[in-house]
Amino acid sequence: MKKLHILEKKLGYTFKDQSMLVRALTHRSAGARHNERLEFLGDSLLSMVIADALFHRFPRVNEGDMSRMRATLVREKTLAELAREFELGEYLILGPGELKSGGFRRESILADAVEALIGAVYLDADIEQMQAMLLAWYDKRLNAIQPGIEQKDPKTRLQEFLQGKRQPLPTYTVVNVVGEAHNQKFTVHCQIEGMPEPVVGLGTSRRKAEQSAAEHALEVLL
Amino acid sequence: MKKLHILEKKLGYTFKDQSMLVRALTHRSAGARHNERLEFLGDSLLSMVIADALFHRFPRVNEGDMSRMRATLVREKTLAELAREFELGEYLILGPGELKSGGFRRESILADAVEALIGAVYLDADIEQMQAMLLAWYDKRLNAIQPGIEQKDPKTRLQEFLQGKRQPLPTYTVVNVVGEAHNQKFTVHCQIEGMPEPVVGLGTSRRKAEQSAAEHALEVLL
Repeated sequence: MKKLHILEKKLGYTFKDQSMLVRALTHRSAGARHNERLEFLGDSLLSMVIADALFHRFPRVNEGDMSRMRATLVREKTLAELAREFELGEYLILGPGELKSGGFRRESILADAVEALIGAVYLDADIEQMQAMLLAWYDKRLNAIQPGIEQKDPKTRLQEFLQGKRQPLPTYTVVNVVGEAHNQKFTVHCQIEGMPEPVVGLGTSRRKAEQSAAEHALEVLL
Repeated sequence: MKKLHILEKKLGYTFKDQSMLVRALTHRSAGARHNERLEFLGDSLLSMVIADALFHRFPRVNEGDMSRMRATLVREKTLAELAREFELGEYLILGPGELKSGGFRRESILADAVEALIGAVYLDADIEQMQAMLLAWYDKRLNAIQPGIEQKDPKTRLQEFLQGKRQPLPTYTVVNVVGEAHNQKFTVHCQIEGMPEPVVGLGTSRRKAEQSAAEHALEVLL
């Protein structure tokens, strides 16, 4: 693993309590002191900081457009991009199974660790420092985002793409659900005319699995 | 309308800028200067304050249980309860249509206004005062809540209720979808054996509409 102070430089924050940073980097596969509680905290802090930033940057934009912009800025894909800017994969602490299967490259693990880092900075410092750090992370993206552009979710974009080519709409089928209620994993197949096999999407809800499948389909098609 | 200072007393906060309070009370049916943007802001602030409170109150509880407790504390029903404690319905500013149809009693309108008030206090004061006010509002509920108890969502509770009576599971059918993508309204029918008519649920997603239908069904059955 690279030296943590290199990561801290990229994050723009130096931890007073290094164990907090280590915890934020520890995936649940690596042991009991993992980052899931920090992720829970960081997720809501991120959502709030971005909501506040959008509220002030776009004084005339309605709630729906603000929601869509926020969804774009806090979605897994964006968080995984941030993680890659920080080269976070090189610092993640993973269990042997995840290590072998390349978990340090998985978008969900990267995105969760980014949220955990946000929670860790909040606890190690305070809300103002956490907010300042987040706004620095998001500076480029906040300057670029515009209401009504690219805020569409993958299913909508896929549908519009296919309609534009006068192709039939995709069909989504739940092919598998595992786990107990509240902790379910859905597997969805998205079938598109002309594609030999359905595209697979996974998610903790049917909706998320469908969006994931649509996103993968767009990656194949575009 | 009652005097606003009586409401401020109940809320535990006196606005420096009274127009902010008025705006938080103004439903979109009443004109352009309505509370939806404040609601967007307040929603994320509430979520963050409750996440932070649960994180510190339950140092050993996992992320899933914290998520469920938060969902219970921030759901529409809980917010509408708070609204009724504040007698908020008497202060809402509604358009003529909503006034006639009793909008001041509608849970969604009450809950949205509570979120808008949270956003308004944050802007009128600061994050600390908003947080202190929210923790006072939630004091009783935060003291009462426990991980794993009553955190189950309505669909799960309905399913368990019916299984306990050895009845077949309910079936959910989307019977109507209106509006453009991102702003859709789903109508779901929940059909339960022995009930002469399906129970109706509405929501901005299929999942929410199903949960709403299940909640109404539980109200009928319990």
